[in-house]
Amino acid sequence: MNVLIVLAHPEPQSFNGALARAAAKMFLSQGHAVRVCDLYAEKFAADEHARHFPQRKNPARFDVQTEQRFSAEREALPADVRQQIDDLLWADFVLLQFPLWWFGMPAILKGWMDRVFAYGALYTGSRRFHLGMCRGKRAMLSVTAGSPAQACAHDGQEGDTRLILWPIHYALHYLGFTVLEPGLIAGVRGGYSESEGAAQDRYLNAQLQAHVARLADLAAIGVIPFNTADDWDEQRKLRPNARVHSPFIRHSENLQLD
Amino acid sequence: MNVLIVLAHPEPQSFNGALARAAAKMFLSQGHAVRVCDLYAEKFAADEHARHFPQRKNPARFDVQTEQRFSAEREALPADVRQQIDDLLWADFVLLQFPLWWFGMPAILKGWMDRVFAYGALYTGSRRFHLGMCRGKRAMLSVTAGSPAQACAHDGQEGDTRLILWPIHYALHYLGFTVLEPGLIAGVRGGYSESEGAAQDRYLNAQLQAHVARLADLAAIGVIPFNTADDWDEQRKLRPNARVHSPFIRHSENLQLD
Repeated sequence: MNVLIVLAHPEPQSFNGALARAAAKMFLSQGHAVRVCDLYAEKFAADEHARHFPQRKNPARFDVQTEQRFSAEREALPADVRQQIDDLLWADFVLLQFPLWWFGMPAILKGWMDRVFAYGALYTGSRRFHLGMCRGKRAMLSVTAGSPAQACAHDGQEGDTRLILWPIHYALHYLGFTVLEPGLIAGVRGGYSESEGAAQDRYLNAQLQAHVARLADLAAIGVIPFNTADDWDEQRKLRPNARVHSPFIRHSENLQLD
Repeated sequence: MNVLIVLAHPEPQSFNGALARAAAKMFLSQGHAVRVCDLYAEKFAADEHARHFPQRKNPARFDVQTEQRFSAEREALPADVRQQIDDLLWADFVLLQFPLWWFGMPAILKGWMDRVFAYGALYTGSRRFHLGMCRGKRAMLSVTAGSPAQACAHDGQEGDTRLILWPIHYALHYLGFTVLEPGLIAGVRGGYSESEGAAQDRYLNAQLQAHVARLADLAAIGVIPFNTADDWDEQRKLRPNARVHSPFIRHSENLQLD
């Protein structure tokens, strides 16, 4: 199996860095091929921008999807984006390792999606979802949160982290990935006082070990369900009899959650 | 009233650019003071990074919150971040104008949040939510989506856009803002064929006019409800009798949405 680990953290010695290295080591020990993409180390440019497209379909007005497709068709995508696309197409399993900052990805990882998930290269209007270019590949998020687990749970003040991750899961599904249930390690900013430091270190180490043990058997990790093409009508609305597979999609606009 | 408009789009001539300019013009015509922050034009660096912190509390290991607070206390935050914070503190109303890319903000706007919503400068452990530094200010998202409105609705394939925006709304609430119901203009990528172009132009112009008309009377725009401090127990879990104010928060873990 080919494994791609994408790390989005500015400090290599961070817990996120340790999680990425531990996962890489475990997959290597299983005999897999592993590539680690450390977006900060690679100084990955987060902003999708006209400067990345020296060849332009429309030099007068920069439209992201138009120019992504134009450059993709001419094999003129930026070298950093091309490398990331090649790594994704090489991989059988993609692991995104990142901290939650303001209830979402760090900007550098969002920029990786904005630029690398390029129209014409990783999807087109006819190659999406079950016809997607990443069909047959698996992807998974591994996420840390500073807040304690209780605040990240379904009844927690910060909102259910698993719901916060849904748009990212959906983007991976859009490319055709089979998306595995994420890893979430909450409370990584515990231990503010010196006396708590040792207990916090033990907690983080135990979480790291459990994370690696879970990754060691990917087949045992649940697959996130999504609706299939048959569930949508020609307006891309849910058909009356279709099951709901996402908390972001529901039959009734006024469905009360309480 | 002081109005800050933050624009996150790489093309000034885009529809997002037009929306920002039209809003600015309207607020000026009402006699308000207006500042427009065009993040792309300002070449705002999206990646929170050690290079932004020449004075470090811990030079050996870069921790974002630690160094944000350390620099905030010494008035040593980066000049671009300091300017953005000053603009936020100056403003009575903040409008974020951006396109949805991969079901979220463009990376440059997420990076603006990661860097500008700095610990020690715009919030601390004791200054959040109803005690937040932005208390009394209003904020609103104005968002465009390429997909048609049906696909962005509660029963649409792309997921309910209003739910996708919740983490951003919560972050604004975290700083103390009163958050207004967002503006959403879907279908901005219609008109793929020449014959559709004129109808698409009319559609976009009508949407722009309606957007400006809505902004002209902020008091008529609904306020997004959030739970208050009394609703949370000491573990930051929802109290049994508290009302649920977010689709991301619910009393039951297994609540079925269908």
